[in-house]
Amino acid sequence: MSYRAPVKDMLFVMKELAGIDAVAQLPGHAEAGYDTAAAVLEECAKLNEDVIAPLNRPGDLNPSSFANGEVRTTPGFKQAFRQFADGGWQGLQHPVELGGQGLPKLIHAACAEMVNSANLSFALCPLLTDGAIEALLTAGSDEQKTTYIPKMVDGTWTGSMNLTEPQAGSDLSMVRTRAEPQPDGSYKIFGTKIFITYGEHDLAENIVHLVLARVVGAPEGVKGISLFIVPKFLLNADGSLGARNDVHCVSIEHKLGIKASPTAVLQYGDHGGAIGYVIGQENRGLEYMFVMMNAARFGVGVQGIAVAERAYQQAVAYARDRVQSRPVDGSLPAAAAIIHHPDVKRMLMTMRAHVEGCRAMALVAAAAFDAAHAHPDADVRKQNQAFYEFMVPLVKGFSTEMSLDVASLGVQVHGGMGFIEETGAAQHLRDAKILTIYEGTTAIQANDLVGRKTARDGGAMARAVAGQIEATERALAGRDSVAARAMLKRLAAARQAFVDVVGFIAGQTKASPNAAFAGSVPYLLLAGNLVGGWQMARALIAAEDRLADDVDADFMRAKITTARFYADHILSKVPGLRDSIVDGAAGVTEMAVEAF
Amino acid sequence: MSYRAPVKDMLFVMKELAGIDAVAQLPGHAEAGYDTAAAVLEECAKLNEDVIAPLNRPGDLNPSSFANGEVRTTPGFKQAFRQFADGGWQGLQHPVELGGQGLPKLIHAACAEMVNSANLSFALCPLLTDGAIEALLTAGSDEQKTTYIPKMVDGTWTGSMNLTEPQAGSDLSMVRTRAEPQPDGSYKIFGTKIFITYGEHDLAENIVHLVLARVVGAPEGVKGISLFIVPKFLLNADGSLGARNDVHCVSIEHKLGIKASPTAVLQYGDHGGAIGYVIGQENRGLEYMFVMMNAARFGVGVQGIAVAERAYQQAVAYARDRVQSRPVDGSLPAAAAIIHHPDVKRMLMTMRAHVEGCRAMALVAAAAFDAAHAHPDADVRKQNQAFYEFMVPLVKGFSTEMSLDVASLGVQVHGGMGFIEETGAAQHLRDAKILTIYEGTTAIQANDLVGRKTARDGGAMARAVAGQIEATERALAGRDSVAARAMLKRLAAARQAFVDVVGFIAGQTKASPNAAFAGSVPYLLLAGNLVGGWQMARALIAAEDRLADDVDADFMRAKITTARFYADHILSKVPGLRDSIVDGAAGVTEMAVEAF
Repeated sequence: MSYRAPVKDMLFVMKELAGIDAVAQLPGHAEAGYDTAAAVLEECAKLNEDVIAPLNRPGDLNPSSFANGEVRTTPGFKQAFRQFADGGWQGLQHPVELGGQGLPKLIHAACAEMVNSANLSFALCPLLTDGAIEALLTAGSDEQKTTYIPKMVDGTWTGSMNLTEPQAGSDLSMVRTRAEPQPDGSYKIFGTKIFITYGEHDLAENIVHLVLARVVGAPEGVKGISLFIVPKFLLNADGSLGARNDVHCVSIEHKLGIKASPTAVLQYGDHGGAIGYVIGQENRGLEYMFVMMNAARFGVGVQGIAVAERAYQQAVAYARDRVQSRPVDGSLPAAAAIIHHPDVKRMLMTMRAHVEGCRAMALVAAAAFDAAHAHPDADVRKQNQAFYEFMVPLVKGFSTEMSLDVASLGVQVHGGMGFIEETGAAQHLRDAKILTIYEGTTAIQANDLVGRKTARDGGAMARAVAGQIEATERALAGRDSVAARAMLKRLAAARQAFVDVVGFIAGQTKASPNAAFAGSVPYLLLAGNLVGGWQMARALIAAEDRLADDVDADFMRAKITTARFYADHILSKVPGLRDSIVDGAAGVTEMAVEAF
Repeated sequence: MSYRAPVKDMLFVMKELAGIDAVAQLPGHAEAGYDTAAAVLEECAKLNEDVIAPLNRPGDLNPSSFANGEVRTTPGFKQAFRQFADGGWQGLQHPVELGGQGLPKLIHAACAEMVNSANLSFALCPLLTDGAIEALLTAGSDEQKTTYIPKMVDGTWTGSMNLTEPQAGSDLSMVRTRAEPQPDGSYKIFGTKIFITYGEHDLAENIVHLVLARVVGAPEGVKGISLFIVPKFLLNADGSLGARNDVHCVSIEHKLGIKASPTAVLQYGDHGGAIGYVIGQENRGLEYMFVMMNAARFGVGVQGIAVAERAYQQAVAYARDRVQSRPVDGSLPAAAAIIHHPDVKRMLMTMRAHVEGCRAMALVAAAAFDAAHAHPDADVRKQNQAFYEFMVPLVKGFSTEMSLDVASLGVQVHGGMGFIEETGAAQHLRDAKILTIYEGTTAIQANDLVGRKTARDGGAMARAVAGQIEATERALAGRDSVAARAMLKRLAAARQAFVDVVGFIAGQTKASPNAAFAGSVPYLLLAGNLVGGWQMARALIAAEDRLADDVDADFMRAKITTARFYADHILSKVPGLRDSIVDGAAGVTEMAVEAF
């Protein structure tokens, strides 16, 4: 099933909701306005539609394989990666002086959605490389930056993130990998890392592993973790590849999905010690890693949107094609394409509304990131940074949970054919299931939302978001369309439920932590649902205005109907979530652990 | 991961909610009281825990394979099937005079849950055989019954159901398989059937295919469909196996899950015509098939409960074992088993509450089936039949949709390990995805609920259920526990929402069918959620009473907490669903088909 990048939808969001024109006013982004975005997206669409998307199913059928310490990726991946890097896509958001394009995150996020829709397994390699670049930009020395980043930007090398160990998953305080300082200022690294995405592969000539490890004698817990560069091949003085470093892939995992992306077990130091170089200061590794993780978390949220979009497109195509049963209203004399049946439409609308809501949320967050980094006014930067940080767990947590429902509906629309692997619908469901787990499970995102993003400031940022939503409600109240009234009703109820929950969470997190955290994931789902719905409300307003101007009427009508669907079918879930959070702690906390 | 049959939970439901004592009062079921049930369940548990459950993962790894027209099942399946049949489990609910045990459906349903938890792929063979037996009992001649049923009951032969064709899935009016009458009263059958579960295998010496086909010259549409017996091997006059019939397996499917169960494409009549024998009268095939389908639909609902129970048990075991992070309340000095973390408990409680609610719904429905068939009073039979028929789409539709969420949570509890196939958690998710599709998709169940079960009697049966729920509310109102008050609040709100929706559906189905059917699946989910919650409320009352008598206090406290969890986390979703149904049609119907 072919993929068509939703360029028009993306540009609508960028222009009407995320404010690409304002982003183009930021210092350094003068050329990143609407026209640039449109041109970049069109170019990006071509590569992903024509080259990368066709490799998605072959990657599932013929995954990365492991033999003798080496990983062979799916045939075609290497050439596609070359085209991807040569086209400048790896460097899209990275600094011009290090070989990148220097474009805003707003444009990068849309392009990232495309490559992930095209091929989630393939796209993980650039995603992890982006994370490594971010960490080096944050804390690397100038020499480290100039040594490693340009080679990663041009795709000669790739990056990997090495956090997890068998006993240290969500809990990084338990990392045991050991770093021994050497007289020359380098370190020898010893340990085992698991679940390392693209930790070994044949797409590039070197891999820059960023590795969390504990320097001998460092404090216990997270305050004793440092971050190291451990290249697969060491570098000679002239920058050419030197000796093979003592890091070796000992196996790759047999997974439910994203099969083409190799998930490596890496063994460090079995032959004398892997040479590593500390990034920044010792014992501050987790802090640097969080920079990388926040970028990666946002990126995984985009993956959720991407796989949901792909599943949606495939379901629509099948529903137009498959003929079965007469319409219930008797409007056609014979069996019709199933897209005419109300429940099939309801499923497709659910998929579509979720994708559009989450995409708008992500792109609005990306624009805030850009303002947080480039706006000349420090206060504006600070506000945008706080808004962006509030959004990250929602983009990651809600978009990925939503992607599971959407991918499952995608199978359902196909009926029995959906369960047959040849159809390809099931792959999206299998692929999507990792998204709620890696880069921090939904519960970890929810802990972040509850602890750092809500309780720490007493709910101030959350209430500021509610205030912005109220402004949208006032705009809706000034309109007399049926759709605007329907949206206003649901949005106001959902926003009020959110305010109730913020009060509960901000009040309970210290006093009664088990009660607050029992509601953490429902709170995340509530907040993500609401913010998506808020953006759909803004889309509805924009689309009604464009429609009044007689611009692209069918497109705008579809936007309005999708927003209305979101209001009545998705936002309508929010008050129930409030009840679960505010009243539901006892049902969790009163259960004795022994009683399960 | 081993499976432990939840015998105690099942017996609690049978005694306190489904009324096994009343079932034992029915003519013919005098020996089917609580003690019998307890003994049968214990015996059933042993076979499933020790023999059938250990074959679940091997079946996924080494599925049924096809070569040269023959299917070889997973090693061990054949011996296990022999033990299953020899133990009398295939004949549990079938008439004593045809070799069965004649036990009520209430006991059979609990036993069916066990074999499905143990091994969904294995259990499909008995499930389909049960369906074939039901159809023969309904419409077969005495000779057909005595010829085929005892051999199926003792496991010498198995049954299969042949409905689907490439162009005829949900829409059976499009069946094209052709039956040509022969001078001797038999028919020659020609056509292709797909998605035939256990349509070919090596577990038994013969397969009794029940096949929907159209007699030459029959009316168009569903009124021209007849049902035929087409045995894989024809029978000699003495009942011994004779010539191979002209029905051949040409391939089996490569599926997302239930991989050990062969899903066959069967070709009828490529070598002169398969010999078939009509069941009952020509052109009434669909009517007979519905009997079989209703039994099978209930059975698939039980599969949903079963796979969810297995996923729950596996998640609990992992959560007790996996140590990661300190509890948020600081109650332990070091990292704890993750079952101590509130969100992990919330996930496990969600799984548990769903399983318990759906199990109670199914067993209460099974008891109604027993009364509908055996009660001496015709009015009581009729009431129970109407109640049972109302429950079938809920048991099938809601339990299977719930099983997807539960199996997905099961993976989530495992974190990264859940995504690795070796863990086995992902298999439950892959297996479960067929359950919302086969034997009628969730939308088909919802159409049945809206059309035949709600609109046809103007909502009378639905309102009668609401009336029974109100009686439970009155019982709750007479209690002063916190849990009873919490349950009463949610149950009353959910029942009121249901009544609102019944009014909408009963009023709109003819006047505005697209609007009614746009809400059909949400209505099914609402009703299933409510009926499960109603049974949890009854369980709460029973458990409080037993606790007051100081019976099995820990067990009863867990029942109460689980009921309370259901109220605040699951029943609390119902009002939002009402809003989607009553207000949400426009968001579906106003979208032009071209706009997707």
